[in-house]
Amino acid sequence: MNSHSSRIVLAPAPGGPEVLAVETRALPDPDPGHVLIDVTASGVNRADVFERMGLYPPPAGASEGLGLEVSGRIRAVGEGVSGLEIGQSVVALVSGGGYADIVRACAGSTLPAPEGVNLIDAAGLPEAVFTVWTNVFDQARLQPGERFVVHGGAGGVGSAAIQMAKAHGAHVIATARGAVRTHLCRDLGADEAYDHQAEDWSARIREHGGADVILDMVGGDYVQQNLDCLNVKGRIVMIAFLRGHRVEVDLMGVMLKRQILTGSTLRSRSDAEKMMIAQAVHTRVWPWIAQGAVRPLIDSRFVLESVRQAHARMDDGGHAGKILLMP
Amino acid sequence: MNSHSSRIVLAPAPGGPEVLAVETRALPDPDPGHVLIDVTASGVNRADVFERMGLYPPPAGASEGLGLEVSGRIRAVGEGVSGLEIGQSVVALVSGGGYADIVRACAGSTLPAPEGVNLIDAAGLPEAVFTVWTNVFDQARLQPGERFVVHGGAGGVGSAAIQMAKAHGAHVIATARGAVRTHLCRDLGADEAYDHQAEDWSARIREHGGADVILDMVGGDYVQQNLDCLNVKGRIVMIAFLRGHRVEVDLMGVMLKRQILTGSTLRSRSDAEKMMIAQAVHTRVWPWIAQGAVRPLIDSRFVLESVRQAHARMDDGGHAGKILLMP
Repeated sequence: MNSHSSRIVLAPAPGGPEVLAVETRALPDPDPGHVLIDVTASGVNRADVFERMGLYPPPAGASEGLGLEVSGRIRAVGEGVSGLEIGQSVVALVSGGGYADIVRACAGSTLPAPEGVNLIDAAGLPEAVFTVWTNVFDQARLQPGERFVVHGGAGGVGSAAIQMAKAHGAHVIATARGAVRTHLCRDLGADEAYDHQAEDWSARIREHGGADVILDMVGGDYVQQNLDCLNVKGRIVMIAFLRGHRVEVDLMGVMLKRQILTGSTLRSRSDAEKMMIAQAVHTRVWPWIAQGAVRPLIDSRFVLESVRQAHARMDDGGHAGKILLMP
Repeated sequence: MNSHSSRIVLAPAPGGPEVLAVETRALPDPDPGHVLIDVTASGVNRADVFERMGLYPPPAGASEGLGLEVSGRIRAVGEGVSGLEIGQSVVALVSGGGYADIVRACAGSTLPAPEGVNLIDAAGLPEAVFTVWTNVFDQARLQPGERFVVHGGAGGVGSAAIQMAKAHGAHVIATARGAVRTHLCRDLGADEAYDHQAEDWSARIREHGGADVILDMVGGDYVQQNLDCLNVKGRIVMIAFLRGHRVEVDLMGVMLKRQILTGSTLRSRSDAEKMMIAQAVHTRVWPWIAQGAVRPLIDSRFVLESVRQAHARMDDGGHAGKILLMP
């Protein structure tokens, strides 16, 4: 039995970026159905910030340390794993510990790195692409020609959502903060983009034909505004609540228009569910990436030792696209 | 062109049962795709009360007068109608004007009267059975073995929901007001029944294994209580808001547990949608009625002239099951 030494990043006590600590741990050889990955880069996600702040405790059985997605090369393969070989370039959704030199991943959540994007930037794909797939395509069943709205269009999930929905043939509407980001949303393919600081996006969307599917990570007062511009049989999928999850809403329209309000998180899914999402992503999204229709939007890259700066950048909210860490 | 004289019931101004007025109108021969029915009985629904109070304006194109469901015999058949013959016993969902001697119905919303129930009581079936089918079976996709909760289990919709869900193989939980009604729910087949005046139904349901599907016509504070006992991937379908539609809710669980909050009304559906519901009801629910597994729960019968008393009985809330009117 070998042991593999890797740095990981911990948040020993809840707090700001300053609580983050880099420590070294030994990882055992991979369990059956798992692989070890030599990490090329890891994506920073809002969920990591919540975990650092003590607001989003990792689920039981999660790997130690922060970090939910990586790119890299297979270092070791556990029993019963097929289709993944030592040295192969991959991306993976991991249950934690992604900010690292080496990370353990479930084979079912590990995919060959896609054609058409370098291996560093590919670290920005798994969380966003899996999240958009399972929520927008699987849960909300977005159809070509439907009117799709995504908030935070210049973020990691938002930028992936714009491109994937567009590649699927939807009419894409994005909201973002400020003129620079709304322009970025249009560059990514959005048919309409609204600066939520300057415009009443809900009224504009309603005037222009409403929304059939809305991907929301804002919550708070956005919930009612989403409902206000949602069409008959429209679906709202909530994946985070940056403005709060206790809300006051009028549900009359949900009944009269037969709307659906739902949501999900990726991390709480079983390995089997993640594998099914991975397979769908491999079949449907990887070709879009190879064609150049979907590409990761990268904000910045930090070395692993600068993880506090990376988190500070996310906390500031000045970023657009993914923040990456490189060991 | 014949003209058919019928009494109808109008609510010329919003108000209590005293505003209801019986008037006589001439109906023309049926349009293509429609029939005229000699009414045997009409069901009184909560929606009729809302319409009387001016709270639920009829949709455009609805027939004049109150009343959304009838039983009776076919009096005349329009062009292009197949499978329905003059003299045939039928039940029908109508777009209004059901409290009458003669009513116009869309052929697609008219079904042969089911075996196993007399033609008067059959008037209590269409609204309840169509509503439960489209919301619980179609929209929420209740599966055999799932835990199904219906509020108002002793009402028209509630009593149909208990029996239909039970016939489908679900574990059925009902809430109702008072010991008499909760007993009635158990008599109808509910595995569990809670008196909402005496028990914390949400806590009890949560303790006993939670809910997979909830059919709710209460709204208000029930919305959060429904969410509190809803399982992972659970679905709530809202069909009315007796306690209000402006609510304060915590949506975190909707995201973490991938729940669905939705709703619908029958009356806003297109004729084509109603026809599809009717076909499913004919295929799936009529056999349950023939077997005695589903039967209309009748509270009381009034003659058409006593429509004010019938509405007063519904306003009092002292009823259990359907209130019928007979011309």
